[in-house]
Amino acid sequence: MSDLPAEFSLIARHFRPLAGPGSLDLSDDAAVFVPPVGREVVVSADAMVQGVHFLSEDPADLVARKLLRTNLSDLAAMGAAPLGYLITVSTPRATPDAWFAEFAAGLTRDQAEFGVSLLGGDTTSTPGPISLSLTILGSVTPGQAIRRNAARPGDGVWVSGSIGDGALGLLAARGEIDDAYLADRYRLPRPRLGLATHGLVRACMDVSDGLVQDLGHICRASGVSAEIEAGLVPLSEAARLQDRLELCLTGGDDYELLMAVDPACEAALQDHAAGLRVPVTRVGQFRTGAPAVTVRDRTGRPMALARTGWSHFG
Amino acid sequence: MSDLPAEFSLIARHFRPLAGPGSLDLSDDAAVFVPPVGREVVVSADAMVQGVHFLSEDPADLVARKLLRTNLSDLAAMGAAPLGYLITVSTPRATPDAWFAEFAAGLTRDQAEFGVSLLGGDTTSTPGPISLSLTILGSVTPGQAIRRNAARPGDGVWVSGSIGDGALGLLAARGEIDDAYLADRYRLPRPRLGLATHGLVRACMDVSDGLVQDLGHICRASGVSAEIEAGLVPLSEAARLQDRLELCLTGGDDYELLMAVDPACEAALQDHAAGLRVPVTRVGQFRTGAPAVTVRDRTGRPMALARTGWSHFG
Repeated sequence: MSDLPAEFSLIARHFRPLAGPGSLDLSDDAAVFVPPVGREVVVSADAMVQGVHFLSEDPADLVARKLLRTNLSDLAAMGAAPLGYLITVSTPRATPDAWFAEFAAGLTRDQAEFGVSLLGGDTTSTPGPISLSLTILGSVTPGQAIRRNAARPGDGVWVSGSIGDGALGLLAARGEIDDAYLADRYRLPRPRLGLATHGLVRACMDVSDGLVQDLGHICRASGVSAEIEAGLVPLSEAARLQDRLELCLTGGDDYELLMAVDPACEAALQDHAAGLRVPVTRVGQFRTGAPAVTVRDRTGRPMALARTGWSHFG
Repeated sequence: MSDLPAEFSLIARHFRPLAGPGSLDLSDDAAVFVPPVGREVVVSADAMVQGVHFLSEDPADLVARKLLRTNLSDLAAMGAAPLGYLITVSTPRATPDAWFAEFAAGLTRDQAEFGVSLLGGDTTSTPGPISLSLTILGSVTPGQAIRRNAARPGDGVWVSGSIGDGALGLLAARGEIDDAYLADRYRLPRPRLGLATHGLVRACMDVSDGLVQDLGHICRASGVSAEIEAGLVPLSEAARLQDRLELCLTGGDDYELLMAVDPACEAALQDHAAGLRVPVTRVGQFRTGAPAVTVRDRTGRPMALARTGWSHFG
């Protein structure tokens, strides 16, 4: 019984050190997870495929961290605090051990940064590209999860950080433009945990498919329309230099928060955000009307956008 | 904003009808899941890749049901009751809509059978084979999850159902042997939910990598050895006809439960199993000694097994 197959040695060497409370050391059929008393559990899952969501030459530690961070961003959008995660990793048989070591090193680093640990998962081989999935678990005070369906006419449209770095960063990561800052922004999102909190933010989601498309999701869920001013949308200095406004508005992978904020809460949100050192910017307003997003240029005219967003699928 | 990408229409048509309480209709960044009061949450994730864990020609509904059932089997092994699941589905762009419809139909059928519903997930494209992952959530009375590490010398080694149908069934599914019963057993495991309960079963896992290898896992986790008699291992009539005992003992994909049972509890376990109409069979005994598994043939001699188990990875 000493000749355990490769799967077990792989798990023991690279994944067991990541395992936290409840994981049972990854040595049982499942993890036993005790939710904090009096909290609701928030749960989300994302898949990432080599060649679709990350580039074949992307370092494994950054791939792992992006996978974890995009899921953390989903928790941030719900106003939830992270607890732990499960991961499935399907790799070609020829994947070198160093790839797993680097992948696990990335997770180790972000586990420390975000206070989460591994609960469980699965490793398998695949004849195709590396395929990953991650399920994140978090918690929230009962009834205080922030949803997409509660924006009201008159609420401001707010965003965190800067918009467009994700889409420009993909071009940079591909070598189509030369900007290390943008490439880093594509490879390593910064989940805005703790920013959107009940009482300050009425509705929220993270910007993963593009600002305009994602704002449309909030409009549809809330039964409102929205108008944003392109000139107010915060761009990083690197993004401004590229002068690709439309791509910034419609490109994906920003993982910033898009929020509906009652005007009476704006000052409190700004104080809260300043305490977290996260910039927040008002870019427009929700209005009554059929769900639709209008983007106005600097002259006030509606912009005609060739595409409204990004899909990893279509 | 009416031209949503394919991903959203796919989710709306095929996955939203599967969504249950807490899923927020799959329209938020995450699900909000309220664990039953006073219960611990049990969670597990598995990946399945086309060409590795299922065959390209396998019907999509059976693939979906196998994915769900293998995860339900992990809950069964922990003595947990199922609550809900998240799924990630990565498919080639050319995958026809009918594949998704059939996949969802399989989930619909098993959701009804096992009392679970969809909480969330992700759909993406892939340039490779279909890659799936499923995270299952269940619950258990605090402290009553059944682990692998509690078998004691003197406990009986018990199994549910019949052993070897999974490995023989793979041969049947591939057309290498002609037996529809076995092919069905490979494609559609029967998770033994409710069988292993605290107080009746001391240690438990499900047989996914082969009886001998999985028994070795319990031995290592519990610090005991085990001895089984090949002649006691329950084979289905179809498996007996194939006369491939060694494959039955070491092949994977049975998804039956392997249990350590205190002799004082044997009668109660048999009563309980009879109530569930699940056969249970004593096949050997745990002993003191370094972790090792001995399989004795009908004459009492230890069998030399060419391989002890199955790995989807190595």
